[in-house]
Amino acid sequence: MTNVVVRTKKRAEAEAVAALGKHGVSTAHEAMGRTGLMKPYMRPIYPGALIAGCAVTVLTQPGDNWMIHVAIEQIIPGDVLVVACTTDNTDGMFGDLLATSLRARGGVGLVIDAGVRDVRDLTEMGFPVWSRAISAKGTVKATLGSVNVPVVCAGAHVNPGDVIVADDDGVVVVPRLEAAQVAVAAQVREANEADKRRRLASGELGLDMYGMREGLAKAGLMYRDDD
Amino acid sequence: MTNVVVRTKKRAEAEAVAALGKHGVSTAHEAMGRTGLMKPYMRPIYPGALIAGCAVTVLTQPGDNWMIHVAIEQIIPGDVLVVACTTDNTDGMFGDLLATSLRARGGVGLVIDAGVRDVRDLTEMGFPVWSRAISAKGTVKATLGSVNVPVVCAGAHVNPGDVIVADDDGVVVVPRLEAAQVAVAAQVREANEADKRRRLASGELGLDMYGMREGLAKAGLMYRDDD
Amino acid sequence: MTNVVVRTKKRAEAEAVAALGKHGVSTAHEAMGRTGLMKPYMRPIYPGALIAGCAVTVLTQPGDNWMIHVAIEQIIPGDVLVVACTTDNTDGMFGDLLATSLRARGGVGLVIDAGVRDVRDLTEMGFPVWSRAISAKGTVKATLGSVNVPVVCAGAHVNPGDVIVADDDGVVVVPRLEAAQVAVAAQVREANEADKRRRLASGELGLDMYGMREGLAKAGLMYRDDD
Amino acid sequence: MTNVVVRTKKRAEAEAVAALGKHGVSTAHEAMGRTGLMKPYMRPIYPGALIAGCAVTVLTQPGDNWMIHVAIEQIIPGDVLVVACTTDNTDGMFGDLLATSLRARGGVGLVIDAGVRDVRDLTEMGFPVWSRAISAKGTVKATLGSVNVPVVCAGAHVNPGDVIVADDDGVVVVPRLEAAQVAVAAQVREANEADKRRRLASGELGLDMYGMREGLAKAGLMYRDDD
Amino acid sequence: MTNVVVRTKKRAEAEAVAALGKHGVSTAHEAMGRTGLMKPYMRPIYPGALIAGCAVTVLTQPGDNWMIHVAIEQIIPGDVLVVACTTDNTDGMFGDLLATSLRARGGVGLVIDAGVRDVRDLTEMGFPVWSRAISAKGTVKATLGSVNVPVVCAGAHVNPGDVIVADDDGVVVVPRLEAAQVAVAAQVREANEADKRRRLASGELGLDMYGMREGLAKAGLMYRDDD
Amino acid sequence: MTNVVVRTKKRAEAEAVAALGKHGVSTAHEAMGRTGLMKPYMRPIYPGALIAGCAVTVLTQPGDNWMIHVAIEQIIPGDVLVVACTTDNTDGMFGDLLATSLRARGGVGLVIDAGVRDVRDLTEMGFPVWSRAISAKGTVKATLGSVNVPVVCAGAHVNPGDVIVADDDGVVVVPRLEAAQVAVAAQVREANEADKRRRLASGELGLDMYGMREGLAKAGLMYRDDD
Repeated sequence: MTNVVVRTKKRAEAEAVAALGKHGVSTAHEAMGRTGLMKPYMRPIYPGALIAGCAVTVLTQPGDNWMIHVAIEQIIPGDVLVVACTTDNTDGMFGDLLATSLRARGGVGLVIDAGVRDVRDLTEMGFPVWSRAISAKGTVKATLGSVNVPVVCAGAHVNPGDVIVADDDGVVVVPRLEAAQVAVAAQVREANEADKRRRLASGELGLDMYGMREGLAKAGLMYRDDD
Repeated sequence: MTNVVVRTKKRAEAEAVAALGKHGVSTAHEAMGRTGLMKPYMRPIYPGALIAGCAVTVLTQPGDNWMIHVAIEQIIPGDVLVVACTTDNTDGMFGDLLATSLRARGGVGLVIDAGVRDVRDLTEMGFPVWSRAISAKGTVKATLGSVNVPVVCAGAHVNPGDVIVADDDGVVVVPRLEAAQVAVAAQVREANEADKRRRLASGELGLDMYGMREGLAKAGLMYRDDD
Repeated sequence: MTNVVVRTKKRAEAEAVAALGKHGVSTAHEAMGRTGLMKPYMRPIYPGALIAGCAVTVLTQPGDNWMIHVAIEQIIPGDVLVVACTTDNTDGMFGDLLATSLRARGGVGLVIDAGVRDVRDLTEMGFPVWSRAISAKGTVKATLGSVNVPVVCAGAHVNPGDVIVADDDGVVVVPRLEAAQVAVAAQVREANEADKRRRLASGELGLDMYGMREGLAKAGLMYRDDD
Repeated sequence: MTNVVVRTKKRAEAEAVAALGKHGVSTAHEAMGRTGLMKPYMRPIYPGALIAGCAVTVLTQPGDNWMIHVAIEQIIPGDVLVVACTTDNTDGMFGDLLATSLRARGGVGLVIDAGVRDVRDLTEMGFPVWSRAISAKGTVKATLGSVNVPVVCAGAHVNPGDVIVADDDGVVVVPRLEAAQVAVAAQVREANEADKRRRLASGELGLDMYGMREGLAKAGLMYRDDD
Repeated sequence: MTNVVVRTKKRAEAEAVAALGKHGVSTAHEAMGRTGLMKPYMRPIYPGALIAGCAVTVLTQPGDNWMIHVAIEQIIPGDVLVVACTTDNTDGMFGDLLATSLRARGGVGLVIDAGVRDVRDLTEMGFPVWSRAISAKGTVKATLGSVNVPVVCAGAHVNPGDVIVADDDGVVVVPRLEAAQVAVAAQVREANEADKRRRLASGELGLDMYGMREGLAKAGLMYRDDD
Repeated sequence: MTNVVVRTKKRAEAEAVAALGKHGVSTAHEAMGRTGLMKPYMRPIYPGALIAGCAVTVLTQPGDNWMIHVAIEQIIPGDVLVVACTTDNTDGMFGDLLATSLRARGGVGLVIDAGVRDVRDLTEMGFPVWSRAISAKGTVKATLGSVNVPVVCAGAHVNPGDVIVADDDGVVVVPRLEAAQVAVAAQVREANEADKRRRLASGELGLDMYGMREGLAKAGLMYRDDD
């Protein structure tokens, strides 16, 4: 494999990115037919963050963050840095200095299938990170990887320019060319929910609201009173 | 296995439930002879919650939350929904709509050996959940399970109507018919602790307060000074 | 193996301990050549704590906290209690009573490769704990272990009197006799970072600031534009 | 909790046990409506073993095998020893001496939600064990548990006298009073499979043999040719 | 997401597949620049198997093997069935009946990021399987997935028609269009190894054979005698 | 941390090593007071191997096997190579070429807290390996570590020259200077077991043979007949 940095202008449309950022991960995931999620071991370093941005991808070696430095040059405002690793690794590849640099370039957050450190500083900076682990383990700068190639990050396939949405529920990847369509579907889905929420809050049962009783009976569900 | 919903009025006595809710998980667990705990992978979605209530149990299939809708109809005020799954699964079976519905029926919390989503909304609602995972992964409504049958949830056996106590330390199950007795034992235990805490705070050693020195010596513990 | 309590006065110099406490885990770890870290499964029970102190070590049996009571007698002000276990175990070996006692002796925190409970109380007390798990599981007092012997705790070798530094990034062990030297190296490292942070914040790339471009090219990194 | 040894004569009927032993785990599990399985982390120490027998249950403390000695007295010929633990533990609670004793009493195998050791000797003896781990870690004899009480073992609820079936696919628990009925259902199921196997081997598709095409189309499955 | 079955004739060239099958996983992985591996949790159900074939991919839901029946119709002689799942799942989605059917269609093996059962029968059939788990857990046929779409299986991206090589070391995916080139590189690599093996067996050190001493010295490696 | 290779002649006495090799892991572990075990995730690549030898230790970086080449030069006949890693890693750091070289130097086996590959070749060579994982993942030669320094490997502290005993039960470390004494204790322990085995095989209960009944009664164990 040649180690390569791909300079690309491909990004999802800003409008779609912004729209997806209003709905959050669960809605976007449902709106794309329940696909695109990273594994649930990806957790935010502090609660309450919600971001949407376009992916600049990095493929790193375990214990080596050299390519993250390389990737930051490819960031444009609104991007999210997505770091994959060739093997399972929890080393602290990213800390407050890299966050300072990434933010200075316009990066809005980090998604890393490895470890992160300086989490107190990152929290104070309000710099959002979703990671596999928190670890102080330092890394070397010795082996090449690639930037802006397709990667598998935490079980999800990510192409450069795809939309990354991340919040307290996790991280979802929306393919670049589907972003606008997914944003519309997410909007529709969310609009439906307000009315449902009101009805459920008033005590109406989902069984009735969704008309499930017939299907349940047909599937064979029995009711009986306790002895 | 027939898939069944058992309509039951069996609940632990309200007084015992209330008493257990004052003491919390660790005390209740000790008061029942160190039994009844769920595995420690069950974590609250936000810190500080403490609930006690009677279990309505659900047995679900992986990736399928159909039976949770069915179960909510069986909830009466003060109940806790306890969701087990036939296999290890982290999908997001429960979110803010179900929480709205569960709360509207009087449910006081959720204990789920699977995933939960919309955790920011749930946190804002103050709706407490203990789960195996946080995951946006959507679920289907295709396969039956059962409601109010005995289940194994996170390693603990739960019968409908048992008391569930949950706080920052985890989740404990108190069998329905033992609830009153455990509540008394918990009360006794807690009363003893105030005096111990005062003595320890004043610098008295546990070694002396609990009279451990003789037992340790008899077991063969040796002391020596460093070279 | 004889079960023994070693009474020792060996402690790292107070000045070095204090200096390390200012820099935190990641800096100390880097300053010792990227060594000494415990595994990243060791997490604080609440965010924001930062401690440095000298280790009093305990080797326990699974599900048995007898030796923790023994160890507390060996604590002097400024110490950190470090609990290892002969096998992987998550039981709740330590709670608010032990914390009260440990604090009364001058202990500044707990690092335990097992479980902890009463975490709400501990949080309210502001008593910092780094642990493998949170679990209400009660323990017995039946089998001996040792105090102030060398232990492996969460993958790190700890000798009595070594400096333990712990914060949101994890836990690091600085050997007693290297503490002063590591404190100096940490100070140097931190001093360098302020200038780097300023330059990166202004938009300068790490690629340029660290002079990486030549090394990357020599290693064979290729750049190409997207098709 | 009182620590108790229950002397019981309750066992599933021998005929049903023998019948279940002919079919194996997957068939028994299906025949009981897909229930009763222990978690898949329970693995045999050598391939090819298949046992069925009635459970003598033991509840142990982590790192303590005292109650296994107690339990062996309760074994009658044809029994399987089922060891649960109050917390996750991998210590080597059982080795070739206990196997010698268990076999001398007529025990046909061991199912243990903890560790086992002397696996080379056990393999040479042809003594089958399903365990969570293999570990040489020695245990103490210091704390009581119980024998022949209901336990949760590897996620499954086991009552004394239930049938344990174990083979290369894992371990399943058949409730004592359902054993005869499950044995019949297993027999029926297996009889059906021979014909299916023959048809599939001849190239007939499951899609056709099970008549799935209509259901798939109704559910919305689309076919398209590759571009 | 539309659920779709893609009928495709795309397969890597037979000659390249055969060549890759002679070299095995580690060599193929190295020959493609150390890429393409599935996670190491994918293990063969018996030792000694080595296969290479073209992927027919399936995306399933947890606990649901409906789409595997659908996928078998798409198999042509020499293919390997590659089963991905939308979430982590260990259920026994595949057993001896499906293996009989898959083999009847010419399938040479199964790679499944979930569970497999009937492993004794599969072993006797000599039908090779690499899986995440062995589990008797039965599955339903209720929810659609897709066949011959790109999937992420055990951390690796697989396109229909890619070459799957699997042996005792794990599973590697060679992209369809790179197969011939990788086969050549694998051949070159293997040819080099025979001579190296001979030299190392004669006692020559890798340090000398690979000329590493200079690089190590330049990197700063020090030698010292023990005190 | 300076990266260093320590040339040392320190080895445990050959006689003690040979004696320990006759008894195996569980006996040696018991003979040293139940200490010295590596974690049970360390598993042999094939069953039936039993080795004892003196440790040459290596500290590696994740994904980098450079130092293993360096370490092999320090091997003398009868040694066991013990590979630790600065962080959790499963990459295939060692394969048949390194095994050929290690064996040519007189090395009798490998214990590696990382991955191993070419396991079919290693099995055919009869070269025993205990590892954390089997993985084809290739490694680089870019970053220094150290040889013959104290390391923590799979949770155990290992000094150069310590005795490593490994078999189907796992891996134990016997400190160099205690080897002779542990060998004697192991011999005594094993001698006792033959008689015990005979008595247990004849049907005598451990309860009686070990005289446990009084202790159990004193601890409060109750017997009752089933209702």
